Amino acid sequence: MGKILGGDNMKIVMVEPINISMMKIEEYRQQLEAEGHQLIAYSSRAENDQEMIKRVKEADILIIANQPLSAKVINASKDLKMISVAFTGFDHIAMEACRENDILVSNSSGYANQAVAELAFGLVINLMRNIKDSDGAVRVGKTRKNLIGNELFGKNFGIIGFGSIGQKTAKIAAAFGCNILVDDHKQHKLGEELGVEYLPIDKLMQE
Amino acid sequence: MGKILGGDNMKIVMVEPINISMMKIEEYRQQLEAEGHQLIAYSSRAENDQEMIKRVKEADILIIANQPLSAKVINASKDLKMISVAFTGFDHIAMEACRENDILVSNSSGYANQAVAELAFGLVINLMRNIKDSDGAVRVGKTRKNLIGNELFGKNFGIIGFGSIGQKTAKIAAAFGCNILVDDHKQHKLGEELGVEYLPIDKLMQE
Repeated sequence: MGKILGGDNMKIVMVEPINISMMKIEEYRQQLEAEGHQLIAYSSRAENDQEMIKRVKEADILIIANQPLSAKVINASKDLKMISVAFTGFDHIAMEACRENDILVSNSSGYANQAVAELAFGLVINLMRNIKDSDGAVRVGKTRKNLIGNELFGKNFGIIGFGSIGQKTAKIAAAFGCNILVDDHKQHKLGEELGVEYLPIDKLMQE
Repeated sequence: MGKILGGDNMKIVMVEPINISMMKIEEYRQQLEAEGHQLIAYSSRAENDQEMIKRVKEADILIIANQPLSAKVINASKDLKMISVAFTGFDHIAMEACRENDILVSNSSGYANQAVAELAFGLVINLMRNIKDSDGAVRVGKTRKNLIGNELFGKNFGIIGFGSIGQKTAKIAAAFGCNILVDDHKQHKLGEELGVEYLPIDKLMQE
């Protein structure tokens, strides 16, 4: 359970720039002010814990992306009730200090699952087929010499972590005809459907 | 029905270089000679029909890749019994003249189905995610500005011709979550499984 949110005059601090235009932030600021809250948005990152503490100290709600947030900063912030992480991962947040101080932490999972899985294949095929180097070669009249690539089909495709992104990636890898190797602490239904092989990361990296 | 193949002293002409090393060709030549045949391999393409006729005239069997082979050349080749096309397509061969002259034509389908389908996605994701330009930008310290891309998911993915390559491509496109549009003269079982929409090419290109 977090502290009670809501009520008047919440001080909301966006402690580092996130990927939103200043215009949009100004729009949100006006909406929040109309409802009796404050929004303070910083346009650059704090350089050290001291500067971070200064920014966070009086915040009720903190908005942060992927800048590390230490226990020292969290413990110095006596009004803090919630941290909104504009990022999928939250291992840069001192979660234990949040628990001790009864601070609710919410992350932004899922906003890029498909995009990450797709880009993985774009990059893999780029490497396997030398697309970038072939593009360079053909523009200067060179041939495919030393640029012949290889297929994904039948290759071992290792996936570290079988969450939303890992599972999307596995479905696509299956369509390419890869053997899918997964490192995860638990087994999943999709893994069974796709016939994935579970291996600890050190074994997986050897395949 | 082709003419009767086999028998002694077949003159086999490789009329243009195909993607095989000279060493390998020499190996084949020795094997064929041991069995009483001849193999003549040209290391460059004929420049015109006259030169082509000269090369092909006395051949019993012709090996060709993707160089056009006209009816004029075929009709001038009175011993020709078979054309082995080291290529998937054979629309560069004057098939009607082959039929008239009772010449067997065999092509090499399937050797690159998977490779072509995979490369298609490598190239598509490259374009959609600006991978090549992003690689260039990051190497000179630039940012992702103007390089943010887009997902394949939910996009219309058009496939012209639903043969082996088209079907492999469709399976992968389905895993990416695309809407698959197909132009083909007949409907296929896989099309039904994947829920593809059949459209004539001019309509397909508008989607």
